[in-house]
Amino acid sequence: MFSIFSLKSGISNVKGFFCDGVSVGMKPNGGLDVGFIRSETPCDISATFTTNRFQASPIKHYQRYPKDFKTNFLLVNSKNANAMTGEQGIRDIDEIFNRLSQKISIENPIMSSTGVIGYRLDIDKITSSFNKFDFSAKDSTKLAEAIMTTDSFKKELAFEVKLEDGSSFNIAGVCKGAGMINPAMATMLCFVTTDANIPKEDMDELLKDAVEQSFNRISVDGDTSTNDTVFLLANRATPNYNKEAFREALNRMLFEFAMMILRDGEGSNKVVAFTVKGAKSKEEAKIASKALSNSLLVKTALFGEDPNWGRIASTIGASGVECSEESLEIYYDDLLIYSKDKRELDQETEERAYQIMKQDSFKIVCDLGVGEAEFTSFGCDLSYEYVKINAEYRT
Amino acid sequence: MFSIFSLKSGISNVKGFFCDGVSVGMKPNGGLDVGFIRSETPCDISATFTTNRFQASPIKHYQRYPKDFKTNFLLVNSKNANAMTGEQGIRDIDEIFNRLSQKISIENPIMSSTGVIGYRLDIDKITSSFNKFDFSAKDSTKLAEAIMTTDSFKKELAFEVKLEDGSSFNIAGVCKGAGMINPAMATMLCFVTTDANIPKEDMDELLKDAVEQSFNRISVDGDTSTNDTVFLLANRATPNYNKEAFREALNRMLFEFAMMILRDGEGSNKVVAFTVKGAKSKEEAKIASKALSNSLLVKTALFGEDPNWGRIASTIGASGVECSEESLEIYYDDLLIYSKDKRELDQETEERAYQIMKQDSFKIVCDLGVGEAEFTSFGCDLSYEYVKINAEYRT
Repeated sequence: MFSIFSLKSGISNVKGFFCDGVSVGMKPNGGLDVGFIRSETPCDISATFTTNRFQASPIKHYQRYPKDFKTNFLLVNSKNANAMTGEQGIRDIDEIFNRLSQKISIENPIMSSTGVIGYRLDIDKITSSFNKFDFSAKDSTKLAEAIMTTDSFKKELAFEVKLEDGSSFNIAGVCKGAGMINPAMATMLCFVTTDANIPKEDMDELLKDAVEQSFNRISVDGDTSTNDTVFLLANRATPNYNKEAFREALNRMLFEFAMMILRDGEGSNKVVAFTVKGAKSKEEAKIASKALSNSLLVKTALFGEDPNWGRIASTIGASGVECSEESLEIYYDDLLIYSKDKRELDQETEERAYQIMKQDSFKIVCDLGVGEAEFTSFGCDLSYEYVKINAEYRT
Repeated sequence: MFSIFSLKSGISNVKGFFCDGVSVGMKPNGGLDVGFIRSETPCDISATFTTNRFQASPIKHYQRYPKDFKTNFLLVNSKNANAMTGEQGIRDIDEIFNRLSQKISIENPIMSSTGVIGYRLDIDKITSSFNKFDFSAKDSTKLAEAIMTTDSFKKELAFEVKLEDGSSFNIAGVCKGAGMINPAMATMLCFVTTDANIPKEDMDELLKDAVEQSFNRISVDGDTSTNDTVFLLANRATPNYNKEAFREALNRMLFEFAMMILRDGEGSNKVVAFTVKGAKSKEEAKIASKALSNSLLVKTALFGEDPNWGRIASTIGASGVECSEESLEIYYDDLLIYSKDKRELDQETEERAYQIMKQDSFKIVCDLGVGEAEFTSFGCDLSYEYVKINAEYRT
């Protein structure tokens, strides 16, 4: 038995971690653009990275450390992804940390970046943050702001987990991501810290599982970035831990972050769960479900609040999974909208479907009727605003 | 040796074929919505259909005929796809042709439909066309109009092919398609007729090849419809034929139709050729090329005329093909925009790239530098207008 309580703010709640965010002038109007997470004692770290073949320089830099290294410092910046920058991009990170080591004691420092691809970091600007940081601050909100790009709101969460014996630990994180989020974890950064006494092997296992059930199930536009990163940092500042409690808290946190990202999908207005069930295999359920959350025609129909189930059916058919129009059933929430005996939308069903689609979130369930397997992914609508944001991003 | 001459109008030029289009009131404002192609003598027919698992009723109706059947009548309608309509959808086609057989002599008549999914055809409306048709008309333009849905212009082409011995034959067609065009041949109809004396096995071979090099290489939005159909009808009204000449004419015709569709992509303003070369295999070149023509972020960058090669690189990396940032080169037309020695865009390159992107059409070439294989697909930009059209389609 355990209980999970939501706390205000984010990483500030976790023992032994410090964080801050400052402006070095890369964002217009003095927006915060560089931040850090620092731990009093070296942390164990688990990571999940993008599957993109062109991994950004900070990821390559991370991968040069030996397996199971410990770190006490994470530096992050927005506006520049430090991607497609070659060996120079890695040397730039080394130079930045050389300079940092003259200010503060660091051990195996790591970096994370997000922004435009193809430009070297401005080392002088980045390192000018070192004179502005309060290295003893616990300001999670400033950190959350410093990693935003097209995000329209800051994303931070903190949970206190109380165990049966009265002991407790904390888990908290910040996250960024809005556009370009694909089921395979794209342009998003998420940094989770904990003071739980969690073994390293549990960190790896539980992070992988939690990412699979959260970030890997959401889609904004089907693209996958060069920089996606999820870090879990554990400094074990408390002696307390319970695996199931930690699993539950981490799953809940990453799922909430994923929903925040989707809700903040560039120009998106609704979050929709696409459940495909009755599939021949889990793999086929996943293919069909992700085809739905990635389809432009489905996304625009969601934006138009048009209960056009034909686009749902057509997308499932196009995905190539086993299905038949005789066994297929489609539901919006609990409303049956298509079956072989109910093909044409009557006026009443159409009106009820429209009411469902007007909600901020709802589910579309497709029962293929050919097996037992099920998978759910999450998507959002596609609006004029998406096109505007992405046509004008770099300018 | 042979010569190919473009002729005005479309199917009207082919001996022994008749066609017309009329309004039966399914489109608003009296737009033409039903048409036919009729041959004096029974035709051989070759067909390519959608890969969507939910094939529409007219396709299922076609497939009930024995292999290598001959037909003398093709009926087409827009506004209603007769898809996801079950056995009833096929019975409705039978009933329509029952009624037609009382007006005119038909042999193995076939049908093709495009429009909204999930509604039965209005048989009385469709068959009311039979009193309006001029069955001896040769009005290709009216037929081309009758098959339009979101198309903004009529698509018809006709070629006269003159052979070395002075003999000639004609090949002509009509086509529709604008949105929802995916590399796997989606929501498009194309009907090509010829009076050449072409053997049936050549028809099958040449049609398959020509579709592979045209409709299967274009993408508007990555979706694949239930109704896509390409028909080639040959009545052999002339004794003339040459295989290479026919191949060339058919390839050219389907490629031009494909470019027309792309140019008419819902709300699109430019056509872009995405060539991926230096790939490990043809399959990998194809995967990367189609990833580019389908990427939302690439499409919106094209619309914004933003020479943001990072999105090109990121999309290639996300496609999972073998590549490295050291060997990759990216060109816009002939302008080198990325290589390992030229990563950051200088002012002059950026200005030149912008001038290239302002054109109605241009090419983006990615040399992966890891092999010899090459593939080209074609795509278009994504504009506000696309979202508007597809959010409001059914209403």
